Amino acid sequence: MATVYLDNNATTRVDEKVVAAMLPFFTEFFGNASSTHEFGATVAPAMKAARQKLQTLLGAEFDHEIVFTSGGTESDAMAIVGALDAAPERREIVTTAVEHPAVLNLCQHLEKTGRARVHFIGVDGAGKLDLDAFRAALSERTALVSVQWANNETGVIFPVEELARLAKNVGALFHTDAVQAVGKIPLALKNSGVDLLSLSGHKLHGPKGIGALYVKKGVKLSPLFRGGKQERGRRAGTENMPGIVGLGAAAEISAQHLDRDLSRVKALRDRLESGILAKIPACRVNGGAEPRLPNTCNIAFECADGEAVLHRLDKAGIAASSGSACASGSMEPSHVLRAMNVPPVALQGAIRFSLSRDTGEADIDRVLEILPPIVETTREKSPLWAEIRQQQCA
Amino acid sequence: MATVYLDNNATTRVDEKVVAAMLPFFTEFFGNASSTHEFGATVAPAMKAARQKLQTLLGAEFDHEIVFTSGGTESDAMAIVGALDAAPERREIVTTAVEHPAVLNLCQHLEKTGRARVHFIGVDGAGKLDLDAFRAALSERTALVSVQWANNETGVIFPVEELARLAKNVGALFHTDAVQAVGKIPLALKNSGVDLLSLSGHKLHGPKGIGALYVKKGVKLSPLFRGGKQERGRRAGTENMPGIVGLGAAAEISAQHLDRDLSRVKALRDRLESGILAKIPACRVNGGAEPRLPNTCNIAFECADGEAVLHRLDKAGIAASSGSACASGSMEPSHVLRAMNVPPVALQGAIRFSLSRDTGEADIDRVLEILPPIVETTREKSPLWAEIRQQQCA
Repeated sequence: MATVYLDNNATTRVDEKVVAAMLPFFTEFFGNASSTHEFGATVAPAMKAARQKLQTLLGAEFDHEIVFTSGGTESDAMAIVGALDAAPERREIVTTAVEHPAVLNLCQHLEKTGRARVHFIGVDGAGKLDLDAFRAALSERTALVSVQWANNETGVIFPVEELARLAKNVGALFHTDAVQAVGKIPLALKNSGVDLLSLSGHKLHGPKGIGALYVKKGVKLSPLFRGGKQERGRRAGTENMPGIVGLGAAAEISAQHLDRDLSRVKALRDRLESGILAKIPACRVNGGAEPRLPNTCNIAFECADGEAVLHRLDKAGIAASSGSACASGSMEPSHVLRAMNVPPVALQGAIRFSLSRDTGEADIDRVLEILPPIVETTREKSPLWAEIRQQQCA
Repeated sequence: MATVYLDNNATTRVDEKVVAAMLPFFTEFFGNASSTHEFGATVAPAMKAARQKLQTLLGAEFDHEIVFTSGGTESDAMAIVGALDAAPERREIVTTAVEHPAVLNLCQHLEKTGRARVHFIGVDGAGKLDLDAFRAALSERTALVSVQWANNETGVIFPVEELARLAKNVGALFHTDAVQAVGKIPLALKNSGVDLLSLSGHKLHGPKGIGALYVKKGVKLSPLFRGGKQERGRRAGTENMPGIVGLGAAAEISAQHLDRDLSRVKALRDRLESGILAKIPACRVNGGAEPRLPNTCNIAFECADGEAVLHRLDKAGIAASSGSACASGSMEPSHVLRAMNVPPVALQGAIRFSLSRDTGEADIDRVLEILPPIVETTREKSPLWAEIRQQQCA
């Protein structure tokens, strides 16, 4: 039986059309885009076309606002370190406690090494950002605000445009890690106040190893990679042409089908979620009360060991996760759920199902059939569960 | 007529077998290597196999000494910044004046921003490193020595193992940008004294957007990308599985055919070079007296405008270059040739022909037929050339 793949926030299947677009750039049009000869120069239009496709998907004003990188982590580092280095008179960063590790660990490191003072803004139990604390943290010392567009674990969407306006008020740059948002919700950067936006190809049915940083025209950034003059001096290194073309194709497909995919995926996610809530007692949707990505369902089963549930799902051919793949295997409770003050009884029992346009009705049926007995079996090992069940029956 | 592609130091054609190895990892085995579920975990052995193939090609002691990156520029930055950050009590770097821009520009930036004092060691007219100056620059303040294994423009090979020993004597780490050497000459890192080595996939018939940094076991490096725990915490970011598998395949093919390819390519290069020297007066092979890569021929035609020669070659379907693709179009004379004190009369007339295992006899025949009249035509525009010719006839 084919795997039911519900871990699309970790990575997605590359679209066949994306692969087809990439293929000629390996063996036929393999020239170096920075070469002056005809053989190299022929690939330049393909790079521009890819930039334009991303421009369209993001609703950006200019195609040259797109800088190709190796992925989300590099884009985040380029934005954060680059903004800090470009504004030596401002030494503070405002970010959140629920960022992806690519932002969180970097900011912690910058603080530890004395390169910046960092404000990590918290969230409430629903995953909603503490706006008062956010406002209070902003000042003329703020070099950069970095707030994710959507959370990778819960799918909770932050009010990025409002936050960008607040950042602008104090003259700070605004960066958003939109790795999980791009391709899943419509974006319109042109008049958004967003200065910098990170995205990753493999989260939207594009290839791994390619991503981009949107850099609004006029924004000064110190480069992370120095060397050749590629990407107008903003990112040195031979351009990854197959990856760039693949990312462009993935962006184009995303943009074309976004509305249709969104509503179909959301309907599937909602059916999965209501089905689970109907069939399995004592579970809660983390972030369920906030605006959320249409594809993400983070659900915590009280008194269940999430890792054990995942393991059994895996044996049954269902791939899901307990949080980000980056943190997988660490057994530490998710920093996102801890920031949301998810009660201890539910903290270890959280599972993330993340869908994509590849997900079908049969996938949801299978989870709704397989999951309830697995959760039940896992809970049987918990003494606390026996107590809770008795209380419920009482 | 097919292009005669003699710009393989800029980039190479991806081997069909490399593409075939990559393909399943786009649409079939597309899991995230860091996922704990079976679907993600199935890709981990492929990653280990790729590491082992690089280990073999490099003659490294352990496969885990290979860290995958997005390419040569990232590997260089990771090595240099990482070594500097890991040894805060040592604030000096020793490098050369003929490094690739990925090293040179980064080191200049580190010096300019006060993060390090950098010694740029010069070369003589043959491209030979000034060993006395090198020795004199080393001290207990040296955090890192970074010297390329082979020059990208001339192919001149530096005595890396000897330099590594000297670096070791003062307790400094030794990094080598071996982007041009890997796959072109046999390497044996195990007992070499090399601590860090950069390589890039697309220079050895592998894909663009993937490279590696060899980090000798025990070497402490501060990571360039922070975030997820990939690559044992040394390089965060979702692993580029198709790229990794492709790089592994490219390394395996290189290792298998290295001896055969080397001698065949060297014979072709030598025939090209002696043919040019026989047919075209007043030209000189830059770096010709030093140990060189077997595939590279950098030849300067006195009183000829190299860009014009390249343009005419290009029109005739021959792709070559004036130096690195990174600097293409800048019209500035090569920093490598300037460091070699190439006389002004030859500085603007240098052309790099770089061969690969894809190069055939017919390619060389074609250049030897097409090039002499092109150089002649170009020289006709130079008043200096008329003078020189008169002197020669006299």
